[in-house]
Amino acid sequence: MSFATHYSVSPQSWGKGRSTRELAEEVAVAIVVNGSTLAVMMATPADLEAFGVGFALTEGVIEQASEISRLEVVNHDLGIEVRLWIGADKAQAMAARRRQQSGPTGCGLCGIESLKEAMRVSRPVRSRLDLSVEKIREAASSLRPVQSLNAITRAVHAAALWHPDHGVLAVCEDVGRHNALDKLAGRAAQMNLDAGHCAVLLTSRVSIELIQKTAVLGAPVLIAVSAPTRLAVDAAQAAGITLIGVARDDGFEVFS
Amino acid sequence: MSFATHYSVSPQSWGKGRSTRELAEEVAVAIVVNGSTLAVMMATPADLEAFGVGFALTEGVIEQASEISRLEVVNHDLGIEVRLWIGADKAQAMAARRRQQSGPTGCGLCGIESLKEAMRVSRPVRSRLDLSVEKIREAASSLRPVQSLNAITRAVHAAALWHPDHGVLAVCEDVGRHNALDKLAGRAAQMNLDAGHCAVLLTSRVSIELIQKTAVLGAPVLIAVSAPTRLAVDAAQAAGITLIGVARDDGFEVFS
Repeated sequence: MSFATHYSVSPQSWGKGRSTRELAEEVAVAIVVNGSTLAVMMATPADLEAFGVGFALTEGVIEQASEISRLEVVNHDLGIEVRLWIGADKAQAMAARRRQQSGPTGCGLCGIESLKEAMRVSRPVRSRLDLSVEKIREAASSLRPVQSLNAITRAVHAAALWHPDHGVLAVCEDVGRHNALDKLAGRAAQMNLDAGHCAVLLTSRVSIELIQKTAVLGAPVLIAVSAPTRLAVDAAQAAGITLIGVARDDGFEVFS
Repeated sequence: MSFATHYSVSPQSWGKGRSTRELAEEVAVAIVVNGSTLAVMMATPADLEAFGVGFALTEGVIEQASEISRLEVVNHDLGIEVRLWIGADKAQAMAARRRQQSGPTGCGLCGIESLKEAMRVSRPVRSRLDLSVEKIREAASSLRPVQSLNAITRAVHAAALWHPDHGVLAVCEDVGRHNALDKLAGRAAQMNLDAGHCAVLLTSRVSIELIQKTAVLGAPVLIAVSAPTRLAVDAAQAAGITLIGVARDDGFEVFS
């Protein structure tokens, strides 16, 4: 069993609808840590090793990619397992945290505990990156040419790491915007890239989770095609991240 | 503590960027069933009772809204708890299924179990709804006028239930497309609407989870502004749902 990232279909079309179309594929991907499922997500079946590494990093299961002793991607009929192995102490901490989150006893507190976990404050990004208006425009326009799957399907998001002197260093695509950024975090770790002098570029709207992930990546600037939520602006401020939104050919807005 | 659905901010803007903008708010919402957290999502703080009812329905925790004996929405500083109470037998079944999913023992099987759960096949929709090309166009164009929060923020999704004779019966908006449809499922149950002769209208791309939710709602037709994934087409076919995508003023495409 293997999975392609897109398939050609022939819809019945009316008006300007197309008679053939490349549809993005999505596959159930389980991230399994030391034999225990951490999460299952619908994702584009590409860059799955990076996805596993990145998800473990952004979820705080590990702090360094080097803590992963083994990683394998296993295809099944129903989907894909990304299996990671980490030290027993880290895995136990993860399991304990998950038990606390899902709190099977009716303690009345676990709702609040879960809210605390969702609203966790990011460790602030220490580095700074000052960009001219021209550079911001250059960054914003550098994303589309490297979105190779989106060029075919027009239906997937992208996250890229961009350096002011070297342009796009890495790009990952996915049907889910969160997955695209998790993949990028993993790719950056695998390639040993220092995000401290880079901007993250995103094709999507910016919610608080994307700020939390950018903070884990350690990038001081986030440039997105669409608007942030109000909470994302607050989170960016608190994490020392410059948040630039609605970045298009004809202008942009700086929210933090 | 209370939460608004949107806030006005004043970004620094360049080019065609705006000097004031209404940003959509997102809030951490915990769905808590019999004192135990089922899930935490970032959501628009509106229609939260419908969200609780709909999420419990689409996740298969309950089959009828009437199984909920009590529901309360509790605001905290960090977010909102939607607390549901259901019969102890149903709650135990839910807890057992969740333990199986998260499988804290390294059994090597739980990744596959989790994939099975994610790929669960929907119960087929039994009713049919035949729509003319004109009616499909009418449905597609009826969504925008009722997206009141999106008219302000341009940043939230909507899901609506549309009847060929009566137009839009209910509409829910959310920063997340999954949440919007969960809210609609809850709203339909609260209003005792029969979705069997309705179409669901969506502003978003269509992934498999949105097909699964539409099947729970019992609507035989789904009309979306954007493209589906390949897997969503398969799932719609299996569930007996007519899937119409890329539905815009100038045309549309029928995928199943």
